[in-house]
Amino acid sequence: MIDLFKYNWMVREDWFSQCSKLSENELVQERQGGHGSILRTFFHIIDVECSWIQAIHGDVVSEPNYEHYKSLELIRQLSRESQEIVNKHLLKWSPTEEFKTVTVPWSAHTYYYGEVIKHVIVHEIHHMGQLSIWAKDVGLDAVNVNYIGRGIMDGHKGCSKYVL
Amino acid sequence: MIDLFKYNWMVREDWFSQCSKLSENELVQERQGGHGSILRTFFHIIDVECSWIQAIHGDVVSEPNYEHYKSLELIRQLSRESQEIVNKHLLKWSPTEEFKTVTVPWSAHTYYYGEVIKHVIVHEIHHMGQLSIWAKDVGLDAVNVNYIGRGIMDGHKGCSKYVL
Repeated sequence: MIDLFKYNWMVREDWFSQCSKLSENELVQERQGGHGSILRTFFHIIDVECSWIQAIHGDVVSEPNYEHYKSLELIRQLSRESQEIVNKHLLKWSPTEEFKTVTVPWSAHTYYYGEVIKHVIVHEIHHMGQLSIWAKDVGLDAVNVNYIGRGIMDGHKGCSKYVL
Repeated sequence: MIDLFKYNWMVREDWFSQCSKLSENELVQERQGGHGSILRTFFHIIDVECSWIQAIHGDVVSEPNYEHYKSLELIRQLSRESQEIVNKHLLKWSPTEEFKTVTVPWSAHTYYYGEVIKHVIVHEIHHMGQLSIWAKDVGLDAVNVNYIGRGIMDGHKGCSKYVL
């Protein structure tokens, strides 16, 4: 399960590198569909991931303000800090928690823990797919988004944290 | 694990419905990025999913020819047939297979079973993200791609097949 977060973080880092070739204007330009701009999309996936993971573990949710992260370097820093928080929680996960019910401050619903985890994973992949179309629009090559070939599962054999 | 396939199939079906509002021209028009056209993208995700799942289970790989599926209705039918094949195999899955090594006819590499499963899952989410940008270009509303709120995990409690 952690593997799919690792995958997302690898792809995110590759997109950061790729998007560092863009001007500030290209990064903040409003685009059709998705979450408005490339920079805003990065901010959104980081914010969504960290908020849900903090909330279902009872942490105070960070609620970063986009206005304070309007450069790729600041977003990258936020991403690193967020990953530390998320990783700390995910490392404690066990399969027995999959159907634990959890709530979050922004919804009246009750969710399964595993439902939130999957929601967060697919949310990022979806937005990175959108980014790959925008990237073409500004002349960037899309990054490799294959899951295979990254060696993500190497060395985890027999550890339930890494079972899908 | 099956849950993420179910999620993909729900989203795919919603996109089929949404794209049924488009003309044949709009469906086959070549687009920037992704897999060429909306119809071709649908074909591609179905083909990739079914091929990998068939291959790692020792089935003869179907290898459908895109030229025979050049309408949304034919693609939808292919999708239904493919889902039956994939579902049949996934229902036999158990967590002990996660690190079983598998090979496929189109690669010299050896993969973990779980690695292929995750590859197939993220592959579709990625392409559906791309589709959501193209959809905006042709005036369609994007479909809801949230994992939460679908009740996908309801009724599966305690069944390891549904643990992430």
